[in-house]
Amino acid sequence: MSGIEGGGERTDWRRPVTLREVALAAGVSVATASKALNDQGRMAVETRARIREIAQRLGFRPNGLAQSLLRKRSFTVGLLTNDTYGRFSLPVMAGISEALVDNGVSVFLCHVEDDPRLGQLHVEAMLDKRVDGIIASGKRVDRALPVDLSNIGIPVIYAFTEPAPGSIGFVSDDAGGARAAVEHLLALGRRRIAHVTGPESFAVVHSRAGAYRQVLAEAGLPDRDPLPGTWSEAWGHAAVTRLFDGSDRPDAIFCGNDQIARGVIDALRERGLDVPGDVGVVGFDNWEIVAAQSRPPLTSVDMNLAALGREAGLTLLSLVDGKPVQAGIRKLPCRLVVRQSCGRPAGG
Amino acid sequence: MSGIEGGGERTDWRRPVTLREVALAAGVSVATASKALNDQGRMAVETRARIREIAQRLGFRPNGLAQSLLRKRSFTVGLLTNDTYGRFSLPVMAGISEALVDNGVSVFLCHVEDDPRLGQLHVEAMLDKRVDGIIASGKRVDRALPVDLSNIGIPVIYAFTEPAPGSIGFVSDDAGGARAAVEHLLALGRRRIAHVTGPESFAVVHSRAGAYRQVLAEAGLPDRDPLPGTWSEAWGHAAVTRLFDGSDRPDAIFCGNDQIARGVIDALRERGLDVPGDVGVVGFDNWEIVAAQSRPPLTSVDMNLAALGREAGLTLLSLVDGKPVQAGIRKLPCRLVVRQSCGRPAGG
Repeated sequence: MSGIEGGGERTDWRRPVTLREVALAAGVSVATASKALNDQGRMAVETRARIREIAQRLGFRPNGLAQSLLRKRSFTVGLLTNDTYGRFSLPVMAGISEALVDNGVSVFLCHVEDDPRLGQLHVEAMLDKRVDGIIASGKRVDRALPVDLSNIGIPVIYAFTEPAPGSIGFVSDDAGGARAAVEHLLALGRRRIAHVTGPESFAVVHSRAGAYRQVLAEAGLPDRDPLPGTWSEAWGHAAVTRLFDGSDRPDAIFCGNDQIARGVIDALRERGLDVPGDVGVVGFDNWEIVAAQSRPPLTSVDMNLAALGREAGLTLLSLVDGKPVQAGIRKLPCRLVVRQSCGRPAGG
Repeated sequence: MSGIEGGGERTDWRRPVTLREVALAAGVSVATASKALNDQGRMAVETRARIREIAQRLGFRPNGLAQSLLRKRSFTVGLLTNDTYGRFSLPVMAGISEALVDNGVSVFLCHVEDDPRLGQLHVEAMLDKRVDGIIASGKRVDRALPVDLSNIGIPVIYAFTEPAPGSIGFVSDDAGGARAAVEHLLALGRRRIAHVTGPESFAVVHSRAGAYRQVLAEAGLPDRDPLPGTWSEAWGHAAVTRLFDGSDRPDAIFCGNDQIARGVIDALRERGLDVPGDVGVVGFDNWEIVAAQSRPPLTSVDMNLAALGREAGLTLLSLVDGKPVQAGIRKLPCRLVVRQSCGRPAGG
């Protein structure tokens, strides 16, 4: 984002000036700058003249193809979500915004309610505003938004929500994330690894548990039934009671989310067990506010939702630009964020 | 929201049919319905005919004044915020959306970055889209958004961010919330009440501490210096060490936010002190995920941010409708949400 320094003058003359730089220098949106330079839209004569003067001063050179694309674009993208309070849509949106603002595009988020008719009202409002495309996002990957986006005439991308058939969707590779967590515990010498997770009605509960079982099987270790429950600290507490009142006590617990892991860590401490000395604990989500405040701070799987949002945003831009994009669901990798709840590698 | 039941037929004939009901029945936005009935805007001839047919069937009767207002309105409102991950703008937005969707208005949220030039780009994008008005919201009430909204030609309301001079703003009555918390502890017989809070660079730290001191003074109780720190569990832990290693130990702690309170509760339990038996604890924010998962569940001050959002949304609609609204900052009341961390009233 170099190119405009001190007083709006360009200092880097090696690459072409972008429309966005003209817009920034003029203090207007990219769409307005586009209209001014293409002699379209309504605006004050002075504004149009001023934008043209700035474009000329900066050395902006529109080419024919770019201009024809510009004419069709409003430089706004709609983001629909039903994740009113949740924490999943927000990192996704941050990633989308970050990718798109670099292209001079503004993201407008609109909450769709669970009532499909109200949802439709918001979709129509976005279409009225001539957004260039829509990204649908949600609070879980196995539920669709209550709106039909299949025939709305503009590009649509699904990010962290169930995609419509034949569409383009981005989700996190949950099984891969779970595999990384369990392999991390194995590499630290843990051999009796339990899995405490959320409700079985969630698809991610099954994909994470499947990966957990598979890694153990590959390591030739005995199978333990995952313990499904709720996504809460209270369930983490209760699960520790169940696991440690018996005889075959685990030396590590892979948890389905960070709140369960927080409950597990607190319950272990209150039983006089040391984390990570006696028991290693891994969470899922890497929700900073929980993971970093745990004692000890929690090692956790991060779904990379901001990166997922960036990919979704850039892919939508490609579609808006008329480039071909293959339909299908792309699983993006998770990453393990190592803190202090699992211990150091042997000899480390 | 009665009036349309089963198959889109009205069953309640006593009040006039609204434009929103016509839009819902037709599956279009209110703006589109408005354009169809006013013979404006571009749309398929069939769509216009269908909307008119539905309006006629439902018995929609536009009046002259409403029509003249409708022509000028796009039924979208912009929400600007710099609270990317925070939890303050989300309840505010939920309240705004709830108030406005009942009026057929869609809310578009746009994140403004900390870079004023990028912020301006987003504001211009919203103005390009002809939103009817803008609500500015943030992550704290003592900082302004990095955009100038003072002369943009459409109504602006500030909600949970520092308002521009001479504008209309809504904030929560923090001092009132703090007063309710301390009075609650006094009513339960607590007499040695400490205050553990956040950084002194926040205006709310001073308003809450001021109210705390004032309530104690009114009760004729000795003054204790508030303990400022960070908004974290770790600070709650450290503060308990400081308060309980000395001699004049408190029997209650009013905390500046729920995370501090969570750290305080955990640290008290680990010292063998009972909450609320030995020490009563109150938090601030009523952040469900922290307050409800504390052991015991935390009594906390709720800033009523959704109600604040509703008020801001309805006030913006009044401005859009051309009604006069007095400038100034309105402080809306907080409420104390009583859970189990303070104990029962004496004899209760």
